[in-house]
Amino acid sequence: MNFRAQICCVAIGICGLAANGATSLDTESQDPNQWVLPLGSYSAIRHSKLNQITPGNVAGLKVAWMMSTGTLRGQEGQPLIIGDMMYFESSYPNFVYAVNLDDIGRIVWKFAPEQDKFAPSVACCDVVNRGVAYADGKLFVATLDTNLYALDAKTGKTLWAARNGDPQLGQTMTSAPLVVHDKVIVGIAGGEYGVRGYLSAYDTKTGKLAWRAHSVGSDQDMLFDANKTIDGATQSPVGKDSSLKTWQGDQWKLGGGTTWGWYTYDPQLNLVYYGSGNPGTWNPNERPGDNKWSTTIFARNPDTGVAAWAYQMTPHDAWDYDGINESVLTDSVVDGKTIPTLTHFDRNGFAYVLDRRNGKLLKANKFDPSTNWAKEIDLKTGRPVLNPDKMTKEDVNVKDICPAAQGAKNHQPASYDPATKLFYVATNHICMDYQAFSVKYKSGFPYVGALLSMFPADHGNVRGRLIAFDQVSGETKWSINDMFQDYSGPLTTDSGVLFYGTLGGWFKAVDEASGKILYQFHTPSGIIGNPITYMHKGKQYVAVLTGVGGWAAIGLAEGLTKGTEGLGGVGLTASLNDWTNLGGTLVVFSLN
Amino acid sequence: MNFRAQICCVAIGICGLAANGATSLDTESQDPNQWVLPLGSYSAIRHSKLNQITPGNVAGLKVAWMMSTGTLRGQEGQPLIIGDMMYFESSYPNFVYAVNLDDIGRIVWKFAPEQDKFAPSVACCDVVNRGVAYADGKLFVATLDTNLYALDAKTGKTLWAARNGDPQLGQTMTSAPLVVHDKVIVGIAGGEYGVRGYLSAYDTKTGKLAWRAHSVGSDQDMLFDANKTIDGATQSPVGKDSSLKTWQGDQWKLGGGTTWGWYTYDPQLNLVYYGSGNPGTWNPNERPGDNKWSTTIFARNPDTGVAAWAYQMTPHDAWDYDGINESVLTDSVVDGKTIPTLTHFDRNGFAYVLDRRNGKLLKANKFDPSTNWAKEIDLKTGRPVLNPDKMTKEDVNVKDICPAAQGAKNHQPASYDPATKLFYVATNHICMDYQAFSVKYKSGFPYVGALLSMFPADHGNVRGRLIAFDQVSGETKWSINDMFQDYSGPLTTDSGVLFYGTLGGWFKAVDEASGKILYQFHTPSGIIGNPITYMHKGKQYVAVLTGVGGWAAIGLAEGLTKGTEGLGGVGLTASLNDWTNLGGTLVVFSLN
Repeated sequence: MNFRAQICCVAIGICGLAANGATSLDTESQDPNQWVLPLGSYSAIRHSKLNQITPGNVAGLKVAWMMSTGTLRGQEGQPLIIGDMMYFESSYPNFVYAVNLDDIGRIVWKFAPEQDKFAPSVACCDVVNRGVAYADGKLFVATLDTNLYALDAKTGKTLWAARNGDPQLGQTMTSAPLVVHDKVIVGIAGGEYGVRGYLSAYDTKTGKLAWRAHSVGSDQDMLFDANKTIDGATQSPVGKDSSLKTWQGDQWKLGGGTTWGWYTYDPQLNLVYYGSGNPGTWNPNERPGDNKWSTTIFARNPDTGVAAWAYQMTPHDAWDYDGINESVLTDSVVDGKTIPTLTHFDRNGFAYVLDRRNGKLLKANKFDPSTNWAKEIDLKTGRPVLNPDKMTKEDVNVKDICPAAQGAKNHQPASYDPATKLFYVATNHICMDYQAFSVKYKSGFPYVGALLSMFPADHGNVRGRLIAFDQVSGETKWSINDMFQDYSGPLTTDSGVLFYGTLGGWFKAVDEASGKILYQFHTPSGIIGNPITYMHKGKQYVAVLTGVGGWAAIGLAEGLTKGTEGLGGVGLTASLNDWTNLGGTLVVFSLN
Repeated sequence: MNFRAQICCVAIGICGLAANGATSLDTESQDPNQWVLPLGSYSAIRHSKLNQITPGNVAGLKVAWMMSTGTLRGQEGQPLIIGDMMYFESSYPNFVYAVNLDDIGRIVWKFAPEQDKFAPSVACCDVVNRGVAYADGKLFVATLDTNLYALDAKTGKTLWAARNGDPQLGQTMTSAPLVVHDKVIVGIAGGEYGVRGYLSAYDTKTGKLAWRAHSVGSDQDMLFDANKTIDGATQSPVGKDSSLKTWQGDQWKLGGGTTWGWYTYDPQLNLVYYGSGNPGTWNPNERPGDNKWSTTIFARNPDTGVAAWAYQMTPHDAWDYDGINESVLTDSVVDGKTIPTLTHFDRNGFAYVLDRRNGKLLKANKFDPSTNWAKEIDLKTGRPVLNPDKMTKEDVNVKDICPAAQGAKNHQPASYDPATKLFYVATNHICMDYQAFSVKYKSGFPYVGALLSMFPADHGNVRGRLIAFDQVSGETKWSINDMFQDYSGPLTTDSGVLFYGTLGGWFKAVDEASGKILYQFHTPSGIIGNPITYMHKGKQYVAVLTGVGGWAAIGLAEGLTKGTEGLGGVGLTASLNDWTNLGGTLVVFSLN
């Protein structure tokens, strides 16, 4: 905890939290001058108490300084601000930079990891990265080739390195790690390569693997206690072999459930929350059953890895509805009671509100109006009420399924403003045709089993919507339509100004109250990163990594030309070439 | 000629010029709202009559918009502004973009040429590009792999393509072409690969080669008239075999004299001016004689290619002092007489002033005080008075030669302000140790024959100086020291504000009168491009391509680690890694 954090802690009276189970990171993250966790706080609300930039003056925003990332591919992360230092990680080859805010223009150190050159070829959806983590003078860096590094934050020197996977098996790493207590937690990607996902925890001091919890497999592999781990849907213990019995034969070994999203943490409950991805393959006929625990939110003890509960959102997923999106931890008033909840805007188009103590489903509202694969989520059973017309099948081209595989929302994290009690979410408004086919597994080769074509919902010209959403009532207060998918996580601030970026490269400031665009600026490239804000020497800055890519722009990133290449990403974004260019740049804004 | 150009032409009374031998491009280039020629005008003064941005308000400059070039390597060019359109070319793979200034963010068209993949491996000093040319609704694009394209400026469609060389022979193209009358003129690079340089002129309508003039070889190859072509140094006809008799044996066939710099034009005299590069090899012992016409300024008739005169600056070059820097066409008062002159800041550290009618040497002042390879240029003989201590020799490591091979000034074009009558020049302040060695020619392989190590002059920490220089008196009115070489061509404006960029990525506005820095901004990457200015809808903009690279940053661009790699570029700029990053971005500034 640095001096500024101490001041802040005293000033806003939250020191008690630290005594009440919180880590020093939790306390530091309360200091709005800094941005010490990838999502700003353990609760992931992506809201800042800073208020120097207001609806009244934001039109005067200007670029304060910039810095190239040294790479061309998609930037899905954000910088951290620790005291007077900024740290950020680029897309592959995953350069990490340390910049002193008092000495702009100088790179204090740069980390350029040696990487397994095979890794980019098994990254399904561009060679993106979602940022570094920090704790106790160390930076934790996940690289595409599945290495996890601990660096000395002062010097950039490698303190230890741990190998979390193997690109030769189709495994990659794109997530921002999360540090809780003495563990650094990180997941794995590769759901399109038959990877069976897991979450790993490494000792922050030694880099030794502390625990590993698979999403799919035996109870032991999953760190499930058959009698104590709760099934969120039924509110009963999961029982023995809760995963294995939902798969046919050995298919679970290629079962997906990767863990490439965001990780959040509740210090009071001492639980880490995260989601798992699609089951393997994308052809549902090859894997009868619920395919547990793919497309699931898990709550785990960060010290032991043991699962407190698990809630599966899309049993027997037939649409690539990964459940990896962030779980935002807030209170919600449901039926007159204030409950510690978790809100999760899923790829499948529903916004889930769970009691985060036990995974009980409280609400599941459609946040993209086009959603048609399920009529609703039955709050009693916790299961979707399916639309049989939109169930995909081998060798049938099922048309006009909404949302598309890319999701009604993808990785881009939402924001929650405690003042308005609303969620601000960058969403997609896209549908798909989906034709499943039989596929054979071969290590390190794509294991997808579906041909997709994605397009705007209603075959219109709106592919993205920024929405202000009430997670309990399901009401959308306002929305802003965008020509392309919205792939940049919004940031809200105490003044009521929201910041986000568009795939076409516009950085926008929006009035939270009205949804009115107050300021926009054309950055060098499309934005799929997440703005942050910080205070330095009395001035509020907003920083964002620009650099188009990711699945939303895979056609542009990979130079694809056919509508069904890149997991169907191309047809959707063919015209994106007319609006933006590859290129990674950190852009920092301020008033005057 | 568009409407705005007409207005301007009438207003400032220069329409007579067009009748007096000028092309329509010359007339259009007088319109300060546009930027129709790579260097702004045929005379290459890089001065704009715009004056909305002043010393009084420039501190309020801000970034108006940006656009990634889609590439990471060095950007040595500048955009053109034709009416409401902006066009620019990136470093290899030489993307060309058309942007409508009324619709920022949309790419009207993008040209992505198929290239010979061998070309980058024979580009001596990064895969840079210096911009496109325009005439009569066509864009002319030189690509690294030596293709010259004519594109329809409206659609980007290829109208014709001509092959100007062959990368397999070490030939590349990095220059901005120049259009004069119905010819598009372009040179060739590859002096480090035994290329014998030439200037080519293609028919703008058909792409047919109209003429080609070698720098070295037979009179016929060089388009020399033995009896009429004047030797600038002697003011006599060059005579028969003026080149061949200055070489031993067939060495002239590998004789260098490449033509990768800037081309300028005098409509009254109907002469094109340009320089030739170093002789091959860099080992002087392998080529006794003057090695004519390497390191030479040529004046040629653009319609026929025939040389009016030639002036060699560095006979028997032993330091890689390419003579390719631009010739700026102004009047100068010499001995009380106003003379149409050409001012040329040479790599070798001397600023040459020639009578541009006949190549007669009028002045040659040191513009970098460290220059020590020659005591002076004898105005009577036109030849340098050598310092024997600094003559390089095979197998001897000659120390502390100034300037270094990179030159006291490299490609970055100078600016001349008619009001102050001063030249504003981005210069280098660097020296070298040079060890020549014997080398054998092999087609497509480096043919250098010297190991270099470059370092700041006086072994200090100043590697670049922006200077305000009187070309006649040789007086430096003021200078601004920079930590790295200054590799961005300054732009002056009628308000007395000068713009340039630094290798560390700072874009600066300077008071021409005092040399005081009035504004600076940290762009995403180091600047080796040349700012331009234009007016759109009543507002003055300044645009610059940022993106570090070129020889000055070859260590960074190629990831080199040894001080003698990259033609000695590394030792000089090792610490540049601590200050900037690869990345190409167009940055456009304006007031409010």
